[in-house]
Amino acid sequence: MSKKPLILVSNDDGITAKGIRTLVYAMKEIGEVVVVAPNSPQSGMGHAITIHSPLKIYRSDVFDGLEGVTAYESSGTPADCIKLAKYHILKGRTPDLVVSGINHGSNTSISILYSGTMSAAIEGAIEGLPAIGFSLCDHEKDPDFSHTISYVRDICLQVLKSGLPKATALNVNFPKKTAHPIKGIKICRQAKATWKEEFDERVDPYGRKYLWLAGSFHNPDKGEDTDEWAIANGHVSVVPCVFDLTAHHAIAILNDDWEILRQPTEKIADHADNF
Amino acid sequence: MSKKPLILVSNDDGITAKGIRTLVYAMKEIGEVVVVAPNSPQSGMGHAITIHSPLKIYRSDVFDGLEGVTAYESSGTPADCIKLAKYHILKGRTPDLVVSGINHGSNTSISILYSGTMSAAIEGAIEGLPAIGFSLCDHEKDPDFSHTISYVRDICLQVLKSGLPKATALNVNFPKKTAHPIKGIKICRQAKATWKEEFDERVDPYGRKYLWLAGSFHNPDKGEDTDEWAIANGHVSVVPCVFDLTAHHAIAILNDDWEILRQPTEKIADHADNF
Repeated sequence: MSKKPLILVSNDDGITAKGIRTLVYAMKEIGEVVVVAPNSPQSGMGHAITIHSPLKIYRSDVFDGLEGVTAYESSGTPADCIKLAKYHILKGRTPDLVVSGINHGSNTSISILYSGTMSAAIEGAIEGLPAIGFSLCDHEKDPDFSHTISYVRDICLQVLKSGLPKATALNVNFPKKTAHPIKGIKICRQAKATWKEEFDERVDPYGRKYLWLAGSFHNPDKGEDTDEWAIANGHVSVVPCVFDLTAHHAIAILNDDWEILRQPTEKIADHADNF
Repeated sequence: MSKKPLILVSNDDGITAKGIRTLVYAMKEIGEVVVVAPNSPQSGMGHAITIHSPLKIYRSDVFDGLEGVTAYESSGTPADCIKLAKYHILKGRTPDLVVSGINHGSNTSISILYSGTMSAAIEGAIEGLPAIGFSLCDHEKDPDFSHTISYVRDICLQVLKSGLPKATALNVNFPKKTAHPIKGIKICRQAKATWKEEFDERVDPYGRKYLWLAGSFHNPDKGEDTDEWAIANGHVSVVPCVFDLTAHHAIAILNDDWEILRQPTEKIADHADNF
């Protein structure tokens, strides 16, 4: 590559999080970095975008003094940040790579759907850009990201070199730091696991009930090709992800099963105007 | 079915929206209805969940007087509402069907990712329940839902009868009401279309800039098997959707392409602790 690649960085923990600082430090070694990240934590935001309220975006001084890094912070969600970067901040310039994270906490399995980190990466992929979300499976307050850095760099260099299959983004998760080094990278599928929720019920100072979502993760999927298996066994998990949600295999099943495709629906005309 | 099916209803436009009222009226004809819906509009919320703030949920009087309908309104997102219904309101009871909508506005193609309506349906599917999101492709302030009602009913009856393929939810869109009747139902794939964004820049009364997201929809996909084609040609579109985002076809590609899977990553140990 003759000139430095342009790398767009976002996250969902907010621009001051340790995870994005780690990612920015790693990215500035391989490219010109533009950060567009939320000005507050946005965990669990999924693929939310801001359509019914205005957005603000400012130059940020969080990374001042780092050569080759320009930063902006926004009131928006992670997906908003990618849209703001592409259509407002960068305008004519196209990033060579979009990276998001490093998330403070796991985004394996079904958690990808709730993940603001992955929504930024998927938004990048929707825009036709190579895009990667990084997450560290560590929910400590001050997690140690040091073991992830060389992997983050090498995965980004690999993607800059070889690109990604069309219409996919990568969901990369790292195991928590232990005494043992990471065993390597595994290309995985999303484990078929879910959250079983509990609601912790409390009473506010005014006598009104409120609830905290407090789920636990259940993984009955014993496959050794899953992201959960990779993390549990000391590997970096890399799941290529689609944003075409069509269950293509189900189209033929519904076409076979559904009698209503062959029998015209009988109109309920009489009381239709009541609604 | 010997006893009435239990139908859980949610949406993203809020519990007072005309769309959910239409859906509740249609559902009470075929089952016992429990509504758990947001107390305010949540459009564009994607699959957001509330993890860093408490949730409130109350009995709602919006549907008082309708036999067989019990309603709750929540401060949470559409995905929260489904979790609240399953793990807090219904507890031991399992819905036979989860329906969401009818959304005021289209959720075809890529819009599914941003859709709160579909996140409620997908959350239902994650919980192993047959789940359907309904949307009307009409952005008027007071849309006419009357032409959708018999289709909503018949699609729900069909799903109650024949179930859905495992780990899928349905994304159902209706064309805007015209002088012509709906031509029928088409099982479709998600069109490969995107939003091209523009940001409308304004200045607030205090002299600070703010932006409004104002995108336009671009559909280069000319396939006649897409949801966009179905809607444009007067059909109801039904797209079966996955929540396993794995790009299964891409796993082999990455395993072939990535040299870093065969060359051990060289650790950057020296300055790792700076982060």
